[in-house]
Amino acid sequence: MSDLLRPPSAPAPGLAVEAASLLEALRAAPPLTHCITNAVVTGFTANVLLAVGAAPAMVDIVGESGMFAGVASGLLVNLGTPTPEQREAAVEAVGGATASGTPWVLDPVAIGALPVRTGLAHALAEQRPTAIRGNASEILALAGLSAGGRGVDATDTTDAAAEAAVSLAERFGSVVAVSGPVDLITDGARVHRIANGHELLTRVTGGGCALGAVMAAFLGAARGSDLDALAAVASASLVYTIAADRAAALSAGPGSFAVSLLDELAAVQPADIAAAARVESGAL
Amino acid sequence: MSDLLRPPSAPAPGLAVEAASLLEALRAAPPLTHCITNAVVTGFTANVLLAVGAAPAMVDIVGESGMFAGVASGLLVNLGTPTPEQREAAVEAVGGATASGTPWVLDPVAIGALPVRTGLAHALAEQRPTAIRGNASEILALAGLSAGGRGVDATDTTDAAAEAAVSLAERFGSVVAVSGPVDLITDGARVHRIANGHELLTRVTGGGCALGAVMAAFLGAARGSDLDALAAVASASLVYTIAADRAAALSAGPGSFAVSLLDELAAVQPADIAAAARVESGAL
Amino acid sequence: MSDLLRPPSAPAPGLAVEAASLLEALRAAPPLTHCITNAVVTGFTANVLLAVGAAPAMVDIVGESGMFAGVASGLLVNLGTPTPEQREAAVEAVGGATASGTPWVLDPVAIGALPVRTGLAHALAEQRPTAIRGNASEILALAGLSAGGRGVDATDTTDAAAEAAVSLAERFGSVVAVSGPVDLITDGARVHRIANGHELLTRVTGGGCALGAVMAAFLGAARGSDLDALAAVASASLVYTIAADRAAALSAGPGSFAVSLLDELAAVQPADIAAAARVESGAL
Repeated sequence: MSDLLRPPSAPAPGLAVEAASLLEALRAAPPLTHCITNAVVTGFTANVLLAVGAAPAMVDIVGESGMFAGVASGLLVNLGTPTPEQREAAVEAVGGATASGTPWVLDPVAIGALPVRTGLAHALAEQRPTAIRGNASEILALAGLSAGGRGVDATDTTDAAAEAAVSLAERFGSVVAVSGPVDLITDGARVHRIANGHELLTRVTGGGCALGAVMAAFLGAARGSDLDALAAVASASLVYTIAADRAAALSAGPGSFAVSLLDELAAVQPADIAAAARVESGAL
Repeated sequence: MSDLLRPPSAPAPGLAVEAASLLEALRAAPPLTHCITNAVVTGFTANVLLAVGAAPAMVDIVGESGMFAGVASGLLVNLGTPTPEQREAAVEAVGGATASGTPWVLDPVAIGALPVRTGLAHALAEQRPTAIRGNASEILALAGLSAGGRGVDATDTTDAAAEAAVSLAERFGSVVAVSGPVDLITDGARVHRIANGHELLTRVTGGGCALGAVMAAFLGAARGSDLDALAAVASASLVYTIAADRAAALSAGPGSFAVSLLDELAAVQPADIAAAARVESGAL
Repeated sequence: MSDLLRPPSAPAPGLAVEAASLLEALRAAPPLTHCITNAVVTGFTANVLLAVGAAPAMVDIVGESGMFAGVASGLLVNLGTPTPEQREAAVEAVGGATASGTPWVLDPVAIGALPVRTGLAHALAEQRPTAIRGNASEILALAGLSAGGRGVDATDTTDAAAEAAVSLAERFGSVVAVSGPVDLITDGARVHRIANGHELLTRVTGGGCALGAVMAAFLGAARGSDLDALAAVASASLVYTIAADRAAALSAGPGSFAVSLLDELAAVQPADIAAAARVESGAL
């Protein structure tokens, strides 16, 4: 099901089919998913990866992260709490990933007004991430179209960031994913809009950050397939938000939702995806 | 319901009414709550803030924390795992908060015998925190009346720390909150004693630390009201411990209690507070 | 029930009886358990210690960790995310522990290919840890018999590491615990094999790391008894894996399993152990 076989202006083929195929591949051969992520969500992120079936490794030490990114299946660089050690380790890891062809995801958490992470995010974007994930405010800020939100809140809507997403996709050759009530994922030519997911994801710290790690895992799983980065990133979003839908139905609030999200990430099966998916796909 | 309208020696007016009003204000305009906190509890703290309705931002990087404290609604500085980066970021943040009038909470975790955090806690206290929160051992140690406990355990009782709390309140102009089976909150002239809460809070790491963050959030919410810092800090304690009471009734142990605490922090409504509150308020 | 009273080649006396006795001692006098552990699992580890009845203290700051290790009941050094600060604090803590006779546990997470932690693990092992805990790949790597696994995954089986475990036990005078479907714990002369535990422990981040902290707590609890380090380390494994068995029976997936594990660590009683234990003990 190569993207090369269909005309570029046609709607993408069933994302649900792609997601089912990648979820099956991921569980058959758990991708070693290297995360350099913030201190707030590192445990939750590792648990999300373990739940969905990937193999997390949170290696954020200078002198280790470069070589590890070279052998990992996928890499996440999340800038939520960028200590000096993590900043240097992130640069080292991106170098290792680039040299080895490891796909990697950049999550420019809360950039805009905060200078340390903003400078680093711009520098890392120049290294051409395989994917960039953020909320609308962060995507606007990375594209230079906004001063960013206040902390990690999204103060702009997903649609407002569509132009910024396309601009980043074209400039850096990245798939860009904008999280929001409807997730928008684009490679600059094609776009998926995913309406799955639940407001409770915004009441759990790491609800977005962990999705970046799942994207890195699906990018790793896609390396042995004929599916491209757009399919991998959108599949990660779809599986994750379907699990969130299922978890929300079982939850009494944000605490039990986070627990059920892990249970449902483990329980969701490839065969469950088509019926649950609420996706619109097409050319831009 | 300004404190200025009643004679200083009269009992405080209904804390339950104040807490209901501040909880409503917090949810109407989620205060951006800046936390510099320890690595053990950072995720749980963010989840507690999200659950109650605040907007957490864990910005503990040198070069970012000062400016961020200036725009935040409230700030928590918790000294549980004070790395060199966090120590410098804490000083920077307190400077930014002081310059901008951002209310801030100091939580001097496990001070006494441990020299690095003890020295820093004394230096930060001189910057006149809006509130100081700790267990009895920590409050005694900060007041210079004890060598502190062993780790984060409270080895002294709340009542034993009442004199130390008043002394700190007078010296630094702070509201001082002593956590224990009965929480004691004082501004040096008035005192609230809150008997809500449950022993299970001591079986969850961050049970106390997260309360410090909730205090910072309520201080932020109080900025637009005529309620003072004593009302804000005591309201935070009351709402938090009422949620803990409700969670304990639903729990099979410390694991499920932590989950239910988040659910109940989200579920508790302003209208629930008066009936649940077990408070004694008065002049000292 | 001293080990000295039975011939060295005889089977160990009932581990279940020893574990019940140590669990009772631990709850009667909660051991202050000093942890220098990785950023991914620090909150979960503290919660596991609180649940079982110990008193955690995550002191990983240079200038504090040495003196604290001297007063703690037990110490864990886990190398999962060894920042420069933690590396220096670990060396300082091991020095303090050694000087004061505090028993300590080394968990050489993901050593082998990753150079920073591997070098540190070898250096710390020379300081003769009371216990060493790891999966088969890590134990093989520490013994110099393998290049290690990929990240924290065990790519070797417990039995494959038996020889390496004995070699480390003899070389460093340590009790060595190899985690896997069947846990193997040896002091070089005697061995316990524990079949309790559940695959879900591998789907929760920190499932193994937290066990290292429980071992440090049980070593602390054993200091006032006539039970030796082998009994303490194996008792920790037995209590932990029995709680895991009970939790698995209550769980819908990895999220609810982690919650129930904490509940069951708090709920399990000394009297429950004998009936639940699946242990084989003997001379090597």
